[in-house]
Formats: sequence, C-alpha cells, structure tokens
Amino acid sequence: MSKLRDLIQSETFNRFIIAVIILNAIVIGLETSVTMREKIGGVLKFLDGMALTIFIVEVILKLAVYRLSYFKTFWNLFDFSIVAVSLMPFGGSVTVVRAIRIFRAFRLISTVPTMRNVAYALMNAIPAMGSVMMILGLIYYVFSVLATNIFGEAYPEWFGTIGASLYSLFQIMTLESWSMGMVRPIMETHPQAWMVFVPFIIITTFAVVNSFVAIIVNSMQKVTEEEIQAERQEIHILIDEVRKLQKDIQDLKARS
Amino acid sequence: MSKLRDLIQSETFNRFIIAVIILNAIVIGLETSVTMREKIGGVLKFLDGMALTIFIVEVILKLAVYRLSYFKTFWNLFDFSIVAVSLMPFGGSVTVVRAIRIFRAFRLISTVPTMRNVAYALMNAIPAMGSVMMILGLIYYVFSVLATNIFGEAYPEWFGTIGASLYSLFQIMTLESWSMGMVRPIMETHPQAWMVFVPFIIITTFAVVNSFVAIIVNSMQKVTEEEIQAERQEIHILIDEVRKLQKDIQDLKARS
Amino acid sequence: MSKLRDLIQSETFNRFIIAVIILNAIVIGLETSVTMREKIGGVLKFLDGMALTIFIVEVILKLAVYRLSYFKTFWNLFDFSIVAVSLMPFGGSVTVVRAIRIFRAFRLISTVPTMRNVAYALMNAIPAMGSVMMILGLIYYVFSVLATNIFGEAYPEWFGTIGASLYSLFQIMTLESWSMGMVRPIMETHPQAWMVFVPFIIITTFAVVNSFVAIIVNSMQKVTEEEIQAERQEIHILIDEVRKLQKDIQDLKARS
Amino acid sequence: MSKLRDLIQSETFNRFIIAVIILNAIVIGLETSVTMREKIGGVLKFLDGMALTIFIVEVILKLAVYRLSYFKTFWNLFDFSIVAVSLMPFGGSVTVVRAIRIFRAFRLISTVPTMRNVAYALMNAIPAMGSVMMILGLIYYVFSVLATNIFGEAYPEWFGTIGASLYSLFQIMTLESWSMGMVRPIMETHPQAWMVFVPFIIITTFAVVNSFVAIIVNSMQKVTEEEIQAERQEIHILIDEVRKLQKDIQDLKARS
Repeated sequence: MSKLRDLIQSETFNRFIIAVIILNAIVIGLETSVTMREKIGGVLKFLDGMALTIFIVEVILKLAVYRLSYFKTFWNLFDFSIVAVSLMPFGGSVTVVRAIRIFRAFRLISTVPTMRNVAYALMNAIPAMGSVMMILGLIYYVFSVLATNIFGEAYPEWFGTIGASLYSLFQIMTLESWSMGMVRPIMETHPQAWMVFVPFIIITTFAVVNSFVAIIVNSMQKVTEEEIQAERQEIHILIDEVRKLQKDIQDLKARS
Repeated sequence: MSKLRDLIQSETFNRFIIAVIILNAIVIGLETSVTMREKIGGVLKFLDGMALTIFIVEVILKLAVYRLSYFKTFWNLFDFSIVAVSLMPFGGSVTVVRAIRIFRAFRLISTVPTMRNVAYALMNAIPAMGSVMMILGLIYYVFSVLATNIFGEAYPEWFGTIGASLYSLFQIMTLESWSMGMVRPIMETHPQAWMVFVPFIIITTFAVVNSFVAIIVNSMQKVTEEEIQAERQEIHILIDEVRKLQKDIQDLKARS
Repeated sequence: MSKLRDLIQSETFNRFIIAVIILNAIVIGLETSVTMREKIGGVLKFLDGMALTIFIVEVILKLAVYRLSYFKTFWNLFDFSIVAVSLMPFGGSVTVVRAIRIFRAFRLISTVPTMRNVAYALMNAIPAMGSVMMILGLIYYVFSVLATNIFGEAYPEWFGTIGASLYSLFQIMTLESWSMGMVRPIMETHPQAWMVFVPFIIITTFAVVNSFVAIIVNSMQKVTEEEIQAERQEIHILIDEVRKLQKDIQDLKARS
Repeated sequence: MSKLRDLIQSETFNRFIIAVIILNAIVIGLETSVTMREKIGGVLKFLDGMALTIFIVEVILKLAVYRLSYFKTFWNLFDFSIVAVSLMPFGGSVTVVRAIRIFRAFRLISTVPTMRNVAYALMNAIPAMGSVMMILGLIYYVFSVLATNIFGEAYPEWFGTIGASLYSLFQIMTLESWSMGMVRPIMETHPQAWMVFVPFIIITTFAVVNSFVAIIVNSMQKVTEEEIQAERQEIHILIDEVRKLQKDIQDLKARS
C-alpha cells in the first residue's frame, strides 16, 4: 500500500497523467474533423477509450490509497466529477455525451501545478466580488419581473417569462444591440421604455465596475500590506532597542 | 410603548420582515406566469395583499415608536417611499401599479445588514465620480444641442429633439451600433458627421474611464491610508521613547 | 484702471458671467424646438445676441486691463477662442454658425472654479497616456495603409482611402459590428482577413488598457507618495534626534 | 573598422535612419492613392526603392561591425526580420508583397529611443498576464471543441471546424452581435444554447478582467516597492545610529 502511495504521489505519475490529458484533448479535437473521423476514426476512438480507462484506474487507485479522505481535497472532487460526468448517459443523447468529453481537458488545471496556482488566485478574487454580486442578483430579479410584467405580452420572445427576461437583460447589460435591436423597437409601442432600460444599464455597469474595483483594491491591499508589515517589524525592533537603551541609562543613573 | 420599541428593534422582528419580503418577491414572480395565475391566482393575490398589509403595519408601528425622528434615517425614508409608491394609483394604469410592486423586493437592501453595508459602500463611490459626472453632463448637453441643430431636420427620429439626441448620444457612448447603425448612414448626407461623433466617443470614454479611476484611487487611498496611519503611530511611539531617553541623558549630564 | 481691474476680478462679476453662460445655454437649447422658435423666437434671438455682446465686452475689458499678458493664461485663450469662433462666418453656412454657438456653454468649465479643477485633473491624466498613444498612432497608420492596400479595391466604401480605413479601424477598435458587419463579409472574398483584424483588435485593446493602467498608476503614485513623504520626514526628525543623543553621550564620555 | 563603428553608433546616423523610415512611411501612404500613383508614381517607386536599399546597407554595415553578436540584441533581430520580410516573394502575390512594406514603419519603435522605452514597458506587462492567458487558452480550446461538436453540423459557417469555432468564440468574447446575431438564432434549434455561451462570456470576461488587474497590481507594486524601499533604507540608517548609541552607552557604563 505504501508503495502504491509513493507511485501515486510521484512526479512521474503526475507527468504521465498530464501527458494522457493532453493527448486525449488532441484526440477529441481531431474527432471533430469529418476527414479525420473517416481516415483514422477507429484509432481515435480506441485512444479516447484508453484515456478514459486510465482516468478511471487513476481514480480507483487514489480511492484505494486515500479512502474517504480523497473527497476532502477540492481538486480531487474536481477530478472525480469530471470523470463521473464522462460516464453518465444523459438520457441517451449521443451529442451531449460526446461533447462533454472535452471537459476532461480541464483536468490540466488540477494536475499542472502552475495552472492550479492561477486557478486558486482567480477563485480568490471571487469573494471580493461576492457582496456586489448579491446586490446585482437582486437588481436582476427585480428588473426581470418588472420587464416581464410590462413588456411580456407585447414582446413574448424577449420578455415572455422571467427566464426570457433574465436572458434579455443579460444581453442588454453586455450592451449588445440593446438600443437599435431592442429598446428602439420597444419604444415605438412603449415610449417610456427607456426609463426601465437606461437606468438598468447605468446601475448594472456601475455595480460590475465596482466589483472589478473590489478585485483591484483587494489584490493591491495584500501586496502593500506585506511590504508595510515588513517595515513595521523593523520599527518594532527599533522601539525595543531604544527601550533597552533607556534601561541602560537608568542603570547608569542609579550607579552614579 | 417601550415593549413595542423592543419588539421592533428585535432581531426576530427583522427576520420576520425579511421572510415576508422574500416570500412577497417570489409571489410577485410567480404571478408573471399565466399558468400560475390560472391555477393559484387567488392564493397569490391574497399573499400579496397580506405582505403589503404587513409592510403598512410595520411602517405605522415604527412611526408610532420613533415619531418624526423616523424620517431622519435614510433607510427608513427608503422603506417608506417604497411602501408609499405601492399605494399610488398612477392614473389608474393597472400595468404600472402591478409592475411597480416588485420594487418592494429592494427592501431587502435596507433590512439585510450585509446588503445594507454593500449598498453604503457602493453609494460612497458616487461622490468620487461626482466631479467628472458634472463635466460629462455639460458635454452631453452641448453635444445634444449641437446634434439637434445639425442632424435634427434630416434624422428626426434620432436627433429631432434634445431628448431624442440625449438618448441617441447615450447609445453612441455605449458604442451600440454607433457606426454601422448611425454614423455611416448619416455620413451619406453629412460627410463630416464623424467630426461630431468620433470626438464625442473619445471624450466621453475618457471621462467615464477617469471616473472609474477616481473610484479605484479613492478606495485604494482609504486602504493604504489606514495602514500607513498605523505605521506612523508606531513611529510616534518611537519618537516619544527617544525623547524620554533624551530627558534621562540630560538628567545624567546635570548630575555628573 | 485699477477700479476696472477690481471689477473684473470680483466674484460678483464672475457670478454674473456664469449666469449669462447658463442662460445663454438654455436659450440656445430652447431654440432647437420648432414650437419655441415660433412662439418666442424673437425673444430668444435677442437674448442670444445680448449674451454674445456681454461676452465680447468681457473680452475687451479683460484685454484693456491685462493687455498682452491676457493671452498667457490657458483659460483666457480658451474663452477667447470660443468667443472668436462665434464671430466666424464659416463660408456662410448658417447651420454650422448656429450649431457652433452652443460651444459657448463650455465657458462654464473656465469660469466655475470646481469645474476648472476637474478639467485640470482630467488634462493632467493625458501625459500619462501620451507615450502609449504615440505607439497607438503608429499602429493605426500602419494598419490603415495595410488595409487600404489589401482591401481598398474590393471594399472602397470601407477601405478605399487611408482616411476611410482610419475610420473603419476606429470602428473595429470600438468592436462595433466588427465581425458580423465587416470581417465576416470580407472573409468571403479574402479568407485570411482575420489575420489582419484579430491581431489589430488584440494589440489596440492591449494598448488602450495599458494607457488606462498608466492613468491609474499615475494617480495612485501621487497619493501614496504624499503619504510616504510625510512618514519619511518623521523618520528624518528621528535620525536627527538620535544624532543629538549621540553627541550628548559623547559629551558625557569626555567629562567622566 | 573603428570609424565605421563610430559612424553606426553616432546619433546623426540614427537620426538619418529615422528620417528615412518616416519618409518611406509617407511614400507608401501616398502610393495608396490612385491619383498620386498616376501623377508621381515613378518618383514614389524610386524613393521606396532608395529607402529599402538604405535599410539593406544599414543591416550589412551593422553585420560587418558587430558580426554574430548583432543577432544577440532583440531590436536588431526586430529590424533584421522587417527588412528580410520585405525581400520575400510570398508566392509571387504582388498585393501581399506591396502591403507588407508598410511594416517597415514599425522600425520607428526600435530606432526612436522614447518609443523603444514605451514598447519595453508594454512588453513587460505581458508576463503578468501570461498565467491567466494560459487558462484562457485552455478554456478557448475546450469551448471550441464543445461548440464544434454540438453546433458544427447545424451551423457549419460559424462552428464547422475548430478554427471557425475559435473565431466565433473570439467574436462572442468581444460581445459583438453575440445574442441577436448568433445565440438567439441558434436557440431556435438548440434552446439550451445559452448554457454554453453565457457561461463562456462570464468566464472569459472574468479572466480578461483579472489579467488587466494583474497588470495594474504589477505596475503599482513596482512603484510602491521603490518608495517603501527608500523608506526602509532610512529606517536602516536609524537602526545603525541607535546601535552606535548603544555602543557609546556601553562604553560609558564600563568606564564608570
């Protein structure tokens, strides 16, 4: 068992898995080409099956070694779900099953150390945005209910249901065709429509920009904090030194 | 009266109000669905009425306890206006009255403490943008009068009035269809039109970016100021200690 | 003469000019409305003439007081050019002359002190962008010559001349209809067209973002520099104090 | 040989080359105009040939002086490739050969010192983005394979091959016509299409914003680090002075 653990934790094993992931990604990429499928379709299918088998064996080996503590690491859960998803039938829809296989390439993020660090850094930026996202979510819900109520009947394709409104509002937030494609036509029947959409654009843009500002301030704060912390430590040393000096002088005074 | 005050200020009461707001938001959301209205329309209507009644009672209770000082808090005013707006007839327009009810969901911002803090933080970012917004407003006015004078006759739909021009300029600032949809067609009759719109885009983009920069610098400044303030306090301690040392040495000198 | 100088430099005079500017801006705004022109066109025309007369008298008074040193201040030059432009015939084109009058409203920037400060701050952000703008200008020129050479014959409306190419590239940089409206149609005749436009988008976006970063870093630097400067001064005081102490101890040593 | 080296390294020589580059850029620009080609086509052709000859002679001279160490400098390689590209036949395609000549104008970046510094600064910003770009590349590959598998058959023009998908996804990332032009039409046959594209937009926007944040934090860090470094040096001086003081006091103690 200890040997198995050594194997799994060895860098060679990790490199082998990385190689399989990359090869698998290339194989799945090649399979999108009709001419490739016709020429070497069998080989590609075999290689893809091989890769999946290797991934399954890897999960089993790790489960055998780490037991339930395997599921305590985020990246293990990440790998496990990707492999598990590959084995799901998805109601027999062949296209979805075939398409979803490429998600296995995301395993590069969990196996290549530098990628894992970047992914960590990116995920660390999310909490800073979290609080603004909460407000943004509320604004989205309110405006989608509002738009469904006001424009739902006249423009069912855009605002017929809350879901349709959410999608349309997302499009408007990205500013894609918001005026020429949507608000100007709507204003022909509802001349006051801009009173809903222009404030929506301004408020959501403001919220999104502020969540980006939060990321910047957050990252900067960490950086300057470290530097200033180092400086403060030196000042602390200085204070201690001066206090020692005071004691020395006190001694001198007592003696003389 | 003191008991009533305790009740209103209790966390249980606040949680109850939050629950009512969320339930009310869901009810209003469900009412947008035709099938829901047909199946349980009566129940939804009743629940909505209940929620509004609770909100009105809440306002009355708070008014009874705080009297006129109720209106001194920003968030009380916020809650009061939302409830008041729900009771307005809006010229009998049923759609507007029904649509506007969902604004009650915004009361979550004033009742959930974390949301209130985020809203405060967002509103604090506005003054930093204020001064640039003033200039941006002037630029908007000048360009809308200019565009109305030059293009108003030929393109009444886009630039017929100052209001229409303001809307069109906002669309151009968001870069939506500005060239293919507006400026290129206009340039067929007014070949120099780009001399109005390209500078407008550059100037407003520059102003908007600078107002975002103002938010970033403002937030960063607060953060670094705090850190540097803490450091300076320690330097002050150091100065005090050195001064004490000076006094000690002066004493020594006087004695010897 | 000294009395005239006092008058011109008085706050009352400045406020009077501000009032005239605002009134004039409103009058020019009202003149865009056909119904207003029909009803009170004469009054508006008279008020506009009055305002222009006041501005001309103001310039003459200031010239009388400050003589040639009048032209040494940036904002005086700004005011002077705006008034001068109002008096130009522009080849008899009535529309341009009438449209250009609204630029007088920009005089608010030079007369309202807070606006002037904001305008200064905005203009101070330009040099930080300057160096990147230089490179961006070169990139624009190279790509517009390139696009004119390659696509000029087939798409004369978009890339027929260097001027047309510059405009089209500006549109592409703003991402407006760049793919569906331009590059996809072009790719039907020139399948490699994306090799010109996709790099152009990436390079210019990168350059523009970097010029914005330059503004942010520039503003932040000024802020932190001030704070750290204050801190360094205190450290300097400390060093001096400790040096004095050293001298004191040296004295003590010599004495004992 | 030493004289030749002096010549090449002289500022006069550099200024002469800059003048030739600018003149050449203007000549190539003028050649895009049909009327110019008709009037002074011969002169322009001659001047262009002259400029190219001068550039080739310059490269030969530098090679003669620096020998193989010529290729060790980045900007020499830059200049060399630009001149070399000008001499390539490109399969006899006259348009490409003629169009590519304008790239010689980029030599301004390597010869004008200020431009070179800005280009350095811009290139220094790239590594900070590098790690995020790696993840972005992976996301692009996964989504393009996914889109090709799911939408390739129904929309061959947009997602027929991985290359086509990469281009379409780039367009979607720039938000150009992503909804009205692509996703809404696709949703008519694949109602769940938004589940691919909306997450793609959110993830890539988030990644791009984070790479910009990385540039900002990187630049800011360099700036504050320098300032704080200067401060720490002064604190170090202070520590040294206090230590000297300690030694003095120790001496005093030993003596008394």
